[in-house]
Amino acid sequence: MLGSTHGTLTTDSRRARAIACGEHPAQVVHGRPAEAGDLDVSGRPLYADVPDLDRLFRPESVAVVGASDTEGRPNTGITRQLLAWSERVGARLHPVHPTRESVFGIPCVPSVADLPEQVDLAALLLSDPLPVIGELAEAKVKFAVAFASGFAETGAEGAAAQERLAAAVARAGGLRLLGPNTNLNAFERFRDDLDGPAIALITQSGHQGRPVFSLQELGIRLSHWAPTGNEADLETADFISYFAERPEVGAIAAYVEGLKDGRAFLLAADRAARRGVPVVAVKVGRTETGARTAASHTGKLTGADAVVDAAMRQYGVIRVDGLDELQDTATLLARARRPRATGAAEPRPEGVVVYSISGGTGAHFADLATEAGLPLPTLSAAKQAELHQWIPDYLSVANPVDNGGHPVGDWRGPRILDAILDDPAVGVLICPITGPFPPMSDKLAQDLVAAAERTDKLVCVVWGSPVGTEAAYRETLLGSSRVATFRTFANCITAVRAHLDHSRFTGAYRSPFDEAPRSPSPSFRKAKALMRPGQQLSEHAAKQLLRAYGIRVPREQLVTSAAAAVRAASLVGYPVVMKASGARIAHKTELGLVKVGLTSASQIRDAYRELTDIARYEDVSLDGVLVCQMVERGVEMVVGVTHDDLFGPTVTVGLGGVLVEVLRDSAVRVPPFAEDQAHAMLAELRGRALLDGVRGAPPADVDALVEVVLRVQRMALELGDEIAELDINPLMVLPRGQGAVALDALAVCR
Amino acid sequence: MLGSTHGTLTTDSRRARAIACGEHPAQVVHGRPAEAGDLDVSGRPLYADVPDLDRLFRPESVAVVGASDTEGRPNTGITRQLLAWSERVGARLHPVHPTRESVFGIPCVPSVADLPEQVDLAALLLSDPLPVIGELAEAKVKFAVAFASGFAETGAEGAAAQERLAAAVARAGGLRLLGPNTNLNAFERFRDDLDGPAIALITQSGHQGRPVFSLQELGIRLSHWAPTGNEADLETADFISYFAERPEVGAIAAYVEGLKDGRAFLLAADRAARRGVPVVAVKVGRTETGARTAASHTGKLTGADAVVDAAMRQYGVIRVDGLDELQDTATLLARARRPRATGAAEPRPEGVVVYSISGGTGAHFADLATEAGLPLPTLSAAKQAELHQWIPDYLSVANPVDNGGHPVGDWRGPRILDAILDDPAVGVLICPITGPFPPMSDKLAQDLVAAAERTDKLVCVVWGSPVGTEAAYRETLLGSSRVATFRTFANCITAVRAHLDHSRFTGAYRSPFDEAPRSPSPSFRKAKALMRPGQQLSEHAAKQLLRAYGIRVPREQLVTSAAAAVRAASLVGYPVVMKASGARIAHKTELGLVKVGLTSASQIRDAYRELTDIARYEDVSLDGVLVCQMVERGVEMVVGVTHDDLFGPTVTVGLGGVLVEVLRDSAVRVPPFAEDQAHAMLAELRGRALLDGVRGAPPADVDALVEVVLRVQRMALELGDEIAELDINPLMVLPRGQGAVALDALAVCR
Repeated sequence: MLGSTHGTLTTDSRRARAIACGEHPAQVVHGRPAEAGDLDVSGRPLYADVPDLDRLFRPESVAVVGASDTEGRPNTGITRQLLAWSERVGARLHPVHPTRESVFGIPCVPSVADLPEQVDLAALLLSDPLPVIGELAEAKVKFAVAFASGFAETGAEGAAAQERLAAAVARAGGLRLLGPNTNLNAFERFRDDLDGPAIALITQSGHQGRPVFSLQELGIRLSHWAPTGNEADLETADFISYFAERPEVGAIAAYVEGLKDGRAFLLAADRAARRGVPVVAVKVGRTETGARTAASHTGKLTGADAVVDAAMRQYGVIRVDGLDELQDTATLLARARRPRATGAAEPRPEGVVVYSISGGTGAHFADLATEAGLPLPTLSAAKQAELHQWIPDYLSVANPVDNGGHPVGDWRGPRILDAILDDPAVGVLICPITGPFPPMSDKLAQDLVAAAERTDKLVCVVWGSPVGTEAAYRETLLGSSRVATFRTFANCITAVRAHLDHSRFTGAYRSPFDEAPRSPSPSFRKAKALMRPGQQLSEHAAKQLLRAYGIRVPREQLVTSAAAAVRAASLVGYPVVMKASGARIAHKTELGLVKVGLTSASQIRDAYRELTDIARYEDVSLDGVLVCQMVERGVEMVVGVTHDDLFGPTVTVGLGGVLVEVLRDSAVRVPPFAEDQAHAMLAELRGRALLDGVRGAPPADVDALVEVVLRVQRMALELGDEIAELDINPLMVLPRGQGAVALDALAVCR
Repeated sequence: MLGSTHGTLTTDSRRARAIACGEHPAQVVHGRPAEAGDLDVSGRPLYADVPDLDRLFRPESVAVVGASDTEGRPNTGITRQLLAWSERVGARLHPVHPTRESVFGIPCVPSVADLPEQVDLAALLLSDPLPVIGELAEAKVKFAVAFASGFAETGAEGAAAQERLAAAVARAGGLRLLGPNTNLNAFERFRDDLDGPAIALITQSGHQGRPVFSLQELGIRLSHWAPTGNEADLETADFISYFAERPEVGAIAAYVEGLKDGRAFLLAADRAARRGVPVVAVKVGRTETGARTAASHTGKLTGADAVVDAAMRQYGVIRVDGLDELQDTATLLARARRPRATGAAEPRPEGVVVYSISGGTGAHFADLATEAGLPLPTLSAAKQAELHQWIPDYLSVANPVDNGGHPVGDWRGPRILDAILDDPAVGVLICPITGPFPPMSDKLAQDLVAAAERTDKLVCVVWGSPVGTEAAYRETLLGSSRVATFRTFANCITAVRAHLDHSRFTGAYRSPFDEAPRSPSPSFRKAKALMRPGQQLSEHAAKQLLRAYGIRVPREQLVTSAAAAVRAASLVGYPVVMKASGARIAHKTELGLVKVGLTSASQIRDAYRELTDIARYEDVSLDGVLVCQMVERGVEMVVGVTHDDLFGPTVTVGLGGVLVEVLRDSAVRVPPFAEDQAHAMLAELRGRALLDGVRGAPPADVDALVEVVLRVQRMALELGDEIAELDINPLMVLPRGQGAVALDALAVCR
């Protein structure tokens, strides 16, 4: 299954060959930055080239293949828009049409081969772009845009046509294709009079991207819009990588219905994370309904939502739900971005101060902000005393700062703002204005805009009036390229939290791709010998697989007679557990196929008889009975590997026993990931406190648990494409310093 | 603690006396509608009078005490606004001032006693309103408004002044007071040109209420604004009760920082629920920060947030977080409200259809709506065929309905809308327009407005453009009094869900106050004898308390010698559990003071010795050792009573053992509540599936658990004010049909 959706056939076949030959050096080489061509041990790329898309967005010459100036034809509208756009960006435009002499007065050539110069970009206004791909390649055209629809979004037949198109583009060498089923969004008119770091936009739907594009009407700068369409060639990941390198881009906003290739997306997000460029994304597919509807719209896979969520978090991608959040969060992150030159400056302090003309508003905002995890430090006594120079004593200025209204009307207003922004604990000032009262709020808005110009810190305003035509909002606040203006408390809080989280994330970021194993561990050959393609392994074999990867299992022996069981017990050591063992036994406990706490030879003989009797009754085929060491009680966990259609093998950890069944309390990660992420997985568990010890229980050996998670990750990387499912359930995590033991395991080979 | 914050001294002392005398008839009288004067068994009122506030909002005559027309004085501005307002509402205004001849040309009287007529409303423009209260009462003034601040919001001294003011008003008989520390919000200019059911607004902060009031500028009708201030007399609850009776009110919107009296609020919410009038409320206090800041702002209690949340849900109050949600939800609920006359019509169907001009938008909206629990039924094959008359076949019309754009431009647009709204499964149509494109979206907006006029069903539009100055939005959509227009997907989804939830809630609503016990049960006298004021009861005594209320406890005996323990065991029946018993033992298990599974006399003698040894070592004073029946394994739950400052005794149920400790998985309710709420509590538990039986365990006896919850509620009502804490932990819920047993109990008397 994996790989079939990737379209990256080279990568997959290379991986398959390497694994089959077992020809890797046993020595693990990692810890160096990944380079082009590097693959991890699973055969997946560790590096993605950044496509140079300068000439796609700013071509010097453009060919319009199928150009028209006949009124009423759709191609005429497109030609007209491309003409206007070419003039704006200063590109020479060449109409291509087999029969026309000229289009809109510009001389036409009959075919791509006849173009008067090597063009950067060819716009294909053809219902079937396939036939011209070869010509474009020969003419060394750098980029083609295919607007035609009727491909993967329409079903199997369209998907086949799209694959033919993709294959033709791949054969064409240097040519890169945008589309098919894309639109003119990339060629719209962008405002060039706006300041500050810009938002670059990537969307799979023009209708859904429009609100972000419209932000320009609110004074927010946009630099690019990439409408990726069906992504036969260029995909969302390529645009993320490219935008992350552009100096004018402050934040990348993406509307994603389905991804083409999980690893490509992660490598792009990794690049953005290394550069500290925030990526904010709406990704449809929270529910089955959404996933199904989106898939029918784009013909792409959505992946299991929890995996998408985890993958995004691993690389600092900020996932939001609404287009309004996408707009507001991207805006704040763009405005929070410092020029590259000062990128190494002191990080901004994290403290958030809420400043308002109403105690009620301050209390309400502080309540919601605190609940969302924003840090609202209490201002120092000295700072409070300073503020009380201008604010009456009976008002609280601890944070929230309540100015009571009057001080904003005079010279005190700017002093208060500067004093707050000057506080070394403060990085963000938020001023919610819910009841605009022009004599007060007009001046307040002006003061906030002016204060924002004097500081490197973030100034956010919530304009709470639903009306939105007030001058203080439209002219003063939206006229500022420094202040981030919101319309709701919630969106302001979401955006500020995203900024703080992202700063913290990128500050500590180390790319897992630099550390990813490139060649198999010594465990791999041993494990390989245990695999039985298409079969479920017996518990005993599954445990041997774990043992090959250094995961501790109980001392145990597989026996086929009561006498052998008694001998095994004395070797394993009393008390023992006895379990029926076979290739296809599930629900052992429910069936009565597990006997615990056996302390004598006679109990063992009885248990042996009983287990084999039950197996006969239940028609369960046994390969024997396991006599296992009893393990002390600890915290029961579950660790496993699951396949995701989009991202391949993933690693899951959860609380065991009833908790995992009832609460589905588990965390997932996409390999490769480092130890910090294994710890982060545990922190995500709602029942995490169990590991710290409750009701007098000792703290569990979390380090040993993390080690098991990392070893299971290694299995996922090395065997992931050959294992359909792997589950350690339970993994008994013993008290600190005593390790963790896999008491039972399930492994299904593909 | 309870009662001290209520200010309802009469009620509390009446309750205390009744309980002390134990003079209630043993017969329980309930099941009849509550009437004025009725008290429940806890002594709390079951009925609240609806104050007639007509003459507060629409007085025929107004006195302005402290009127001024001297430029530059604050009272002049207030007088001017009251004058303008009086003219608008057609009230005669009488300035009152000891020295002025006239104010704004209107003759002045020197004191309230000199008023030329009995006035409905007196506006008190005095820094200390207390001295005039007596005069107002004598002059039979109906309402007074006190604007002065400096009361409970400023600390202890102000709170004392406020209590004196409240006492004076109470003595004054018929006079009702709004304020102190209120403002002119009630006397603003309301638009009278708007149609449809209106929003009535109640706020504790003018700044926070302003955005809701401003909705009028978006064409949304408002009927009242009650700025409750410090609520020395009239409180939020009074306004809820009053507005719920007004025919023009479609929804009540409230911004609440603190409540004055929990029961009064519930009785008001009950009245709104009976009338089917939705109440939407922001209640500050999600976090400690918010609660603290709000308390310092209003001088009121916020109550434990989980209790506030539960209390609101019990009475169908819709709690939202943001002022934007308050506006949008109240707007939709007002527009969803049918005229009173047709109140008994068929309920609207619940099905929600998403209709859009972009498959991407439909997929995205459907994803978020489904996640939020909105029902998006798949349209019938016949309906889909009907829609495909106008919508191309390759587009999905199953729901979401994707029209692909073109059909909205011509005659097909209205046909499609009517066909969808005509579907008997559909009650709500939502059209998200994220990328306004005037040639299409202008016509679409007009068609939606027109379709909404032709149907009784709900038509919602999300205008996703951040710009908000487009004609289709400002003129067409906001010009409709039928369409509910939103700016974000999230707020539309929140509002529609609130509407569906509220319809379902009121459809099934039965007031718990009609069913609440008015006199003690026969258990009460027995229980009363067991109480030890100020002490923690021993486990044995606590269990006797439970037994008095018909809650099953294990067979057990308290013994003080090993020999007696052996005798007790044969009476109780082997195997037995032995536990140390004493008035102040906590953490018995951790201390080793519990021995389970004892099967012989010798084991019992050993256990007795060991328990008394440990007690000596740990310096624990025992009143003996309990010899208890062993109870079969079941699901461990926790049921208890906790005091809330605002609402009094509350009942809690949670999952026991490690779950309650690690996950705090519990639900709470404020008595009185009926069986349906006890079931709803269980449904709220994240680990609820444990009760259904997992891993082959049989389903637990949920009916018995519900019965225990209701019996504990009875204890809370009858003993609540004498019990500081009651905890059954664990309550072992046995398999279905076998009941539930309280294995351990803690009771602390006040």
